[in-house]
Amino acid sequence: MQYSIMGMNYRSKLPVIIDSIVNSCSDKGCFEHIDSAVIPSKDSIVEIIDLFKDVLFPGYFGDQTIEKNNLIYHIGSEITELFEKLSKQVTNSILHECRRKEEDCVECIDKGQEETIILLKKIPQIRALLATDIVNAYNGDPAAKSYDEIIFSYPGIFALMVYRVAHELHEQGIKILPRIMTEYAHSVVGIDIHPGAKIGKGFFIDHGTGVVIGETSLIGDNVRIYQGVTLGSLSFPRDEKGQILRDLKRHPTIEDDVVIYSNSTILGGDTVIGARSIIGGNVWLTRSVPADTKVLIEEPKLVFKKSSS
Amino acid sequence: MQYSIMGMNYRSKLPVIIDSIVNSCSDKGCFEHIDSAVIPSKDSIVEIIDLFKDVLFPGYFGDQTIEKNNLIYHIGSEITELFEKLSKQVTNSILHECRRKEEDCVECIDKGQEETIILLKKIPQIRALLATDIVNAYNGDPAAKSYDEIIFSYPGIFALMVYRVAHELHEQGIKILPRIMTEYAHSVVGIDIHPGAKIGKGFFIDHGTGVVIGETSLIGDNVRIYQGVTLGSLSFPRDEKGQILRDLKRHPTIEDDVVIYSNSTILGGDTVIGARSIIGGNVWLTRSVPADTKVLIEEPKLVFKKSSS
Amino acid sequence: MQYSIMGMNYRSKLPVIIDSIVNSCSDKGCFEHIDSAVIPSKDSIVEIIDLFKDVLFPGYFGDQTIEKNNLIYHIGSEITELFEKLSKQVTNSILHECRRKEEDCVECIDKGQEETIILLKKIPQIRALLATDIVNAYNGDPAAKSYDEIIFSYPGIFALMVYRVAHELHEQGIKILPRIMTEYAHSVVGIDIHPGAKIGKGFFIDHGTGVVIGETSLIGDNVRIYQGVTLGSLSFPRDEKGQILRDLKRHPTIEDDVVIYSNSTILGGDTVIGARSIIGGNVWLTRSVPADTKVLIEEPKLVFKKSSS
Repeated sequence: MQYSIMGMNYRSKLPVIIDSIVNSCSDKGCFEHIDSAVIPSKDSIVEIIDLFKDVLFPGYFGDQTIEKNNLIYHIGSEITELFEKLSKQVTNSILHECRRKEEDCVECIDKGQEETIILLKKIPQIRALLATDIVNAYNGDPAAKSYDEIIFSYPGIFALMVYRVAHELHEQGIKILPRIMTEYAHSVVGIDIHPGAKIGKGFFIDHGTGVVIGETSLIGDNVRIYQGVTLGSLSFPRDEKGQILRDLKRHPTIEDDVVIYSNSTILGGDTVIGARSIIGGNVWLTRSVPADTKVLIEEPKLVFKKSSS
Repeated sequence: MQYSIMGMNYRSKLPVIIDSIVNSCSDKGCFEHIDSAVIPSKDSIVEIIDLFKDVLFPGYFGDQTIEKNNLIYHIGSEITELFEKLSKQVTNSILHECRRKEEDCVECIDKGQEETIILLKKIPQIRALLATDIVNAYNGDPAAKSYDEIIFSYPGIFALMVYRVAHELHEQGIKILPRIMTEYAHSVVGIDIHPGAKIGKGFFIDHGTGVVIGETSLIGDNVRIYQGVTLGSLSFPRDEKGQILRDLKRHPTIEDDVVIYSNSTILGGDTVIGARSIIGGNVWLTRSVPADTKVLIEEPKLVFKKSSS
Repeated sequence: MQYSIMGMNYRSKLPVIIDSIVNSCSDKGCFEHIDSAVIPSKDSIVEIIDLFKDVLFPGYFGDQTIEKNNLIYHIGSEITELFEKLSKQVTNSILHECRRKEEDCVECIDKGQEETIILLKKIPQIRALLATDIVNAYNGDPAAKSYDEIIFSYPGIFALMVYRVAHELHEQGIKILPRIMTEYAHSVVGIDIHPGAKIGKGFFIDHGTGVVIGETSLIGDNVRIYQGVTLGSLSFPRDEKGQILRDLKRHPTIEDDVVIYSNSTILGGDTVIGARSIIGGNVWLTRSVPADTKVLIEEPKLVFKKSSS
């Protein structure tokens, strides 16, 4: 470093810096959310996911021991808290979308509460779905010693729990909130499931780091996938102006009872993997496969030689 | 959205929802932990791992500057806290296992404290092992500028620290607790090491995201692996009733001084990679390799063409 | 378990354990930071990254609604806090390096404040760069429905934000601090970008889990990469004593407008991917590619067979 401004009070330089940051912000060379409607709060969404965890798996994650006698109070207080926090974030998400589309938003708060109630009513069915996921994890993994171990420690179950809640919100037409939820799960466990994907019961993701399941994927029942599997898109059709078309089916269909081993990539909206097929590891597939098929990569020739050193 | 229930007090709908959640929980279409023995607490386990970090690498992670003079007080207070927290979780883990096996549990609390003492006695040897890991990380990575940088920032060292502690608990016969520990590390750094794996000294995992090391893997000394490497199982033998056999060796053996480059997959309980062998990147191996061998994928033909657009 | 020490007060065993830990620490079979200069604090670095997030994307992440009127107070208070926290950590990082090199450190605190001011002055240009990244993410991803969704939830944007700040510190000659910053981002989103890499504007990383961008990578403008892409080194040249040479260019050069699809690996300091080239998925490249080239793996033969079971 060539310059020497020793002895200066560096703090005295802050006002100029602050001004330049404030001013640079108005020249549109940056993104800001100033004078805007409130937007969903990431911190609050993390709390909401923790509450869903407690409600979907009572007694597993809290500090208290849950007994039959106090269960209703426990669930009651958590659902009430969930309603307050979630309806606020759902409302913020709706407000955000209204503003983006420059629509009027007369009943957004009401709508936020309504959609939250619709979601909370689905909790028993979400729990039933997650139970099928857990049973299939146990049946598909010799390392699993108990159901509890799976609920406590399997990253795939956490990712699925968040996805199954976020998917319902997505189906209800809520936009940005479910994406923030699944990307939070992605950051926690490395499994990236878009809330728009449709996934049947008994889904098991083992290990899971690096899994990507794209927005328009369609997955049947009792499917099992391993770490590093991508269900992705092949190319992006564009309209005559060169803008990406954002609403086409771009991701594959995986039928019932399919197994896809680690690091395989399956691409394209027209690609269908037929029921009961087994896709081996490291396969790169961009075309359909009929039912009851095994697809293996032809073992690549390996070069064996004595190490020189 | 077609329905309109505006102006309603949505909160009034909560009691019905709460009832349906409480009732759905008793029909076994879900997993719950009601009227059960206490179970390990994930939050407490995170605190325990932080305490181990402080004790295994004194002076690196706390706020205080540690000096020779105050070291004994510092270690003393942390080990005492570790004993209290860990013995509680070890006990919970033992209680959980007793209950699962429907065994009597006369001395579980005593046993929890005993096993904790056994683990704490091993801290000096765990530290010595981790020191060999750090030295090999430095020797194997030109991007590493100092040992401190490795301890502070290398994800592989964090994963190994948690694994080396969890492995000792696993060897002592503690079940669910070590799994929660290593899955926590997995969620933090994307490296999934089962506490049952046996790993020699001087192990180095570079970058690490996506690494999977299965339960019955056996790894010698001074092995180096890169991101995306899987040591996995080839298939799951089942008993005559179709139940998975959960106790066989299903994962490979890696002998001393082997290097395995990124995204390679090595599968099978009978697969042995001989000492000093080098496995190149993207290799898919399901058979053994003698000592001093280089295994490279025959470079797949690449198609080069002028881009059309 | 064969031993029985039931009924004992296990706590009475702690002093001996504590002694053995304290003593084992002095025999150099472990790493410690005792009687050392203060070192950067990871917790504080996480707070610093949160502050940068607020300042770089005002109004997105805080609890408060930011308005034009209060923007200057908001930015003002955050920059002041950032200065206090960051200058302390920059100073610690400089002290750490001085000690490592056994140099005198007369003006370290002054220098820490000076370097912090230099960094804070660059905030407007870092924001402008990040804006180009966000625009390219939107243009390159049909799943992205709005810029806000990208800022809120895209892991690649978070990784780039941390990298772009850390890279400036790295260019200013600060050593360990930027590494801790990018490894924190790595642990959050699974994207490992070394602060030494040089990356042009409009960079988009989709999904991102498993991405590794090595220390001496050189990336042009408007480059797009997908999950699992590695820009790595091919081998480590060593000096005559067998010590790794740590300062050579070991990682590839990627020219403007290149796209690299998922799980491809590009290695070597002399490897140059020419402008506008497209590298397909799963490609393993260790040699240069001219401009305007498509490189695809020749589709490996797949074996299709009827499943037996």
